Amino acid sequence: MAYSLGPNQYGKAEVRMVTVSRAGSVHSLQDLTVSTSLRGDLAATHLTGDNSDVVATDTQKNTVFAFAKEQPVGEIEDFALRLGRHFVSSFDQITGARVLIDSHGWDRVNAHAFSRGSSEIRTTAVTVSGDQHWVVSGLRDLVVLKTTGSEFHGYPRDKYTTLPETTDRILATAVTARWRYQGSGIDWSTSFSAIRDLLVTTFAEKHSLSLQQTLYAMGAAVMEARPEVAEIRLSMPNKHHFVVDLSPFGLENNNEVFYAADRPYGLIEGSVVRDDAEDPGLAWYTLPEF
Amino acid sequence: MAYSLGPNQYGKAEVRMVTVSRAGSVHSLQDLTVSTSLRGDLAATHLTGDNSDVVATDTQKNTVFAFAKEQPVGEIEDFALRLGRHFVSSFDQITGARVLIDSHGWDRVNAHAFSRGSSEIRTTAVTVSGDQHWVVSGLRDLVVLKTTGSEFHGYPRDKYTTLPETTDRILATAVTARWRYQGSGIDWSTSFSAIRDLLVTTFAEKHSLSLQQTLYAMGAAVMEARPEVAEIRLSMPNKHHFVVDLSPFGLENNNEVFYAADRPYGLIEGSVVRDDAEDPGLAWYTLPEF
Amino acid sequence: MAYSLGPNQYGKAEVRMVTVSRAGSVHSLQDLTVSTSLRGDLAATHLTGDNSDVVATDTQKNTVFAFAKEQPVGEIEDFALRLGRHFVSSFDQITGARVLIDSHGWDRVNAHAFSRGSSEIRTTAVTVSGDQHWVVSGLRDLVVLKTTGSEFHGYPRDKYTTLPETTDRILATAVTARWRYQGSGIDWSTSFSAIRDLLVTTFAEKHSLSLQQTLYAMGAAVMEARPEVAEIRLSMPNKHHFVVDLSPFGLENNNEVFYAADRPYGLIEGSVVRDDAEDPGLAWYTLPEF
Amino acid sequence: MAYSLGPNQYGKAEVRMVTVSRAGSVHSLQDLTVSTSLRGDLAATHLTGDNSDVVATDTQKNTVFAFAKEQPVGEIEDFALRLGRHFVSSFDQITGARVLIDSHGWDRVNAHAFSRGSSEIRTTAVTVSGDQHWVVSGLRDLVVLKTTGSEFHGYPRDKYTTLPETTDRILATAVTARWRYQGSGIDWSTSFSAIRDLLVTTFAEKHSLSLQQTLYAMGAAVMEARPEVAEIRLSMPNKHHFVVDLSPFGLENNNEVFYAADRPYGLIEGSVVRDDAEDPGLAWYTLPEF
Repeated sequence: MAYSLGPNQYGKAEVRMVTVSRAGSVHSLQDLTVSTSLRGDLAATHLTGDNSDVVATDTQKNTVFAFAKEQPVGEIEDFALRLGRHFVSSFDQITGARVLIDSHGWDRVNAHAFSRGSSEIRTTAVTVSGDQHWVVSGLRDLVVLKTTGSEFHGYPRDKYTTLPETTDRILATAVTARWRYQGSGIDWSTSFSAIRDLLVTTFAEKHSLSLQQTLYAMGAAVMEARPEVAEIRLSMPNKHHFVVDLSPFGLENNNEVFYAADRPYGLIEGSVVRDDAEDPGLAWYTLPEF
Repeated sequence: MAYSLGPNQYGKAEVRMVTVSRAGSVHSLQDLTVSTSLRGDLAATHLTGDNSDVVATDTQKNTVFAFAKEQPVGEIEDFALRLGRHFVSSFDQITGARVLIDSHGWDRVNAHAFSRGSSEIRTTAVTVSGDQHWVVSGLRDLVVLKTTGSEFHGYPRDKYTTLPETTDRILATAVTARWRYQGSGIDWSTSFSAIRDLLVTTFAEKHSLSLQQTLYAMGAAVMEARPEVAEIRLSMPNKHHFVVDLSPFGLENNNEVFYAADRPYGLIEGSVVRDDAEDPGLAWYTLPEF
Repeated sequence: MAYSLGPNQYGKAEVRMVTVSRAGSVHSLQDLTVSTSLRGDLAATHLTGDNSDVVATDTQKNTVFAFAKEQPVGEIEDFALRLGRHFVSSFDQITGARVLIDSHGWDRVNAHAFSRGSSEIRTTAVTVSGDQHWVVSGLRDLVVLKTTGSEFHGYPRDKYTTLPETTDRILATAVTARWRYQGSGIDWSTSFSAIRDLLVTTFAEKHSLSLQQTLYAMGAAVMEARPEVAEIRLSMPNKHHFVVDLSPFGLENNNEVFYAADRPYGLIEGSVVRDDAEDPGLAWYTLPEF
Repeated sequence: MAYSLGPNQYGKAEVRMVTVSRAGSVHSLQDLTVSTSLRGDLAATHLTGDNSDVVATDTQKNTVFAFAKEQPVGEIEDFALRLGRHFVSSFDQITGARVLIDSHGWDRVNAHAFSRGSSEIRTTAVTVSGDQHWVVSGLRDLVVLKTTGSEFHGYPRDKYTTLPETTDRILATAVTARWRYQGSGIDWSTSFSAIRDLLVTTFAEKHSLSLQQTLYAMGAAVMEARPEVAEIRLSMPNKHHFVVDLSPFGLENNNEVFYAADRPYGLIEGSVVRDDAEDPGLAWYTLPEF
């Protein structure tokens, strides 16, 4: 046979689970989207349809729901680790698991009522392989904009270059960030809040000569302050806001009226890596590079 | 000829405009999506392609941008009225205009930086016809949830009924509300904030025996407190959160673990009308009924 | 009390149902999205939460599924009528029903396999009130484009007009059409196919001086050929394809390279009405005007 | 400094370009979405905001449009290669490029008019690094369904397993496929059509004991017939169609009435690799693993 089965994984995607803690007079809420993928020696089902090693994706879904009841969910990183370790330890042929969790935020209205917060999502991607594990947490759809403090000039001009240089533009992006943790004993919640704050503050306060410079500064700020982070990867679309040409109408437009474009958009992707970072192992396997 | 041109309108949809007020050291921001539609005696272009009465949709777009510079945008209701009146007064064959504006919220980070708020959108739909006008404002994608204080029972049971009755369920919805203003001298911003607060508070605090009861209570609260509102129309999907059956796993589930379903969903639509409301005229023409 | 309950309806939205006819060796498939709304004397649940007249939306969903088994679904118009009449005749307080059905197309691969066709959707909106009924059928997301045979000029020029006139442009749109049937004994399937063909052919072949002219011609073609149609309403976004200015690169662009814009877009909406059309009654109630 | 810039790339995403070939009396059309990313020694802009090596994303967009005029676009693989090689050869600090192209299909109506085909998209992802290049082509949103010929049983049962075994179910998926080419002189169009046909035919005709088995058979069919393919990666969501329980209504449901679920869904991902495949090099870098 001149070909064979290559890398593969399978699981249940986007289990939408809401859990309510009803202890006491004030309820609390977790709103999660959980996706599990299992890996291992799965040649039989691919080659012959023998499913004796295939933990059904329906079973994976049931396990998510049951685990949420057996023990409080807690931090999404811990919940993902419990799930991943369960699958790997419970089935001989399953040697690896990847658990993705998105956490959707709600703002409290009163003791029992909530309103949906921003569309920003807190994420984790946990990989378990044998007795090893890696945690890559992050956020996405963190949409930020600054009305000044952003320039762009000095780029090369070839025969296809028409963009005018600018010393003052709107800079807007929707941040996707993923950072790989190293070490142990991490307070996931505290770390997340601190990193998110660093990202927003650096975007807001760092004077920008390019979105690349802003991206690097955001990553570097995390590196400076958070030793538990081995590396951080950022994907930041440049959501263009074009100054509308009002001169045909006899009007000046001093960066006051903008057209917010949908497509195309710039896309800046980059990473900042600690020099003595732990080996990434399988931490990023099947995750987007950026 | 056995048929003829019926009702029609045309315009430019979804002009994405961001305006920045740079007066002083602290910038402010408006992020709007503006759609204009014009009405009038437009038979010529339909029947023969004679466009001498067709204000180009590109011109409509330019007008939106230019108006945003000529005078501060201000409240979306006022901006929509200025646009609508301009089109109706400037072109003989254009006798009516409808202007829709969505306002997207941003939270301030510092003097010049902002982060995107929730996906909730403030809306207005202004109709101008000759020298008359109507203002229907509202909001959409106000997503709210309560973890208790909601029952549903006592409904008729026929041969197709299987739903068990409940005295405690999650109630969740994404509110679309539109209210028609009457009278004059309205403080649009104050009125919007007060109405939004009434909607959220009533949803949260009113014990619910049906989503219909909740909807009516929300509308009635607005009627009680805001005499400038002639009527309010509400569309509220019942975003089902089903209690997961954990009994196969030997677990009880006392309203703690839920599956959040996408489709199908209940859809409750209704209105509350002031008894002495002004005549609606064309206020709702081409808007959704709910 | 200075206010009261106004118009209202409620139901189950977007029941995703696939039915398979397994008679014979060749299977056939229907893929439908069904939404039901009921109307009637529903003051009790709104005012007091008394649900004794509220046919649960879960029951409505069950009824859709059960009806699909009790009798072959057949044409979507007939299925919608059966559902609507059932609800109105079975519950005293329910005096009206509106049933929306979207039909999603599949292409046959072999006797038991299918591939998804275009994203175009066949629709119906059936209203039942007492012993009356109305049928409004249509389609949406019929995306068509012509590379020539479209001009746009002769429109008024005011101080905000910058659009250059053109005698040759791309014309592209995504047609939403709804037509109201009158009379009886209609062959729904034949009528739909004929109307769809008229819409596509007229768009393709009619030389266009404005999208309004094209819209009217499409509606008129239906009026000429299909006496069972009382009126037709069309909503046609002008999906702009802008000629890219290649002159900075020393290149001519004779309508060869275009930028396909997302937003904003023109939006042309209009209707063609038969002079002796039957009274529309409630046919359009709670449907979009266009 | 304890950290440094890691991997990065930047470019212009989702340039929506339509080109028309007007030679002769019958026009033809290409509808593409093009995304370019450049790589190289880009530390300066990240660290200091010095943009002297940053080919502006606006320039990248202009180049896409200009190249489409300078020479017929031709096959998307060739167009992507021309773009990638241009960037790498024209700018000293740019040593690599990745060009993604999506091709959207249209069906011909007449000599100058077209209607949008299915939502299926033909794709390519071309990587250029120095004087090397790799081509990964594919498709996505190929939605297929079979009404019989699919079983699922024999999977392990643990305490969280409730899924009943089945010997007859609907199998439906939306195929994303990416295959890496090797060798030279490939007829891109012929190869694409042949591979697409193999994927659809194998899905339709291969009796399925698991979606994994179907996935592998689809990949293997490509391997058998297309020596120009070094490996193929497939991502296939199991779009669940659940048999509706009609027994409460006294009805049998012999796989006739199904509920099509949105979420969660199974997700089966896998690859088939030729034993003597050329080294993948950078072919997959920053592409999804599956």
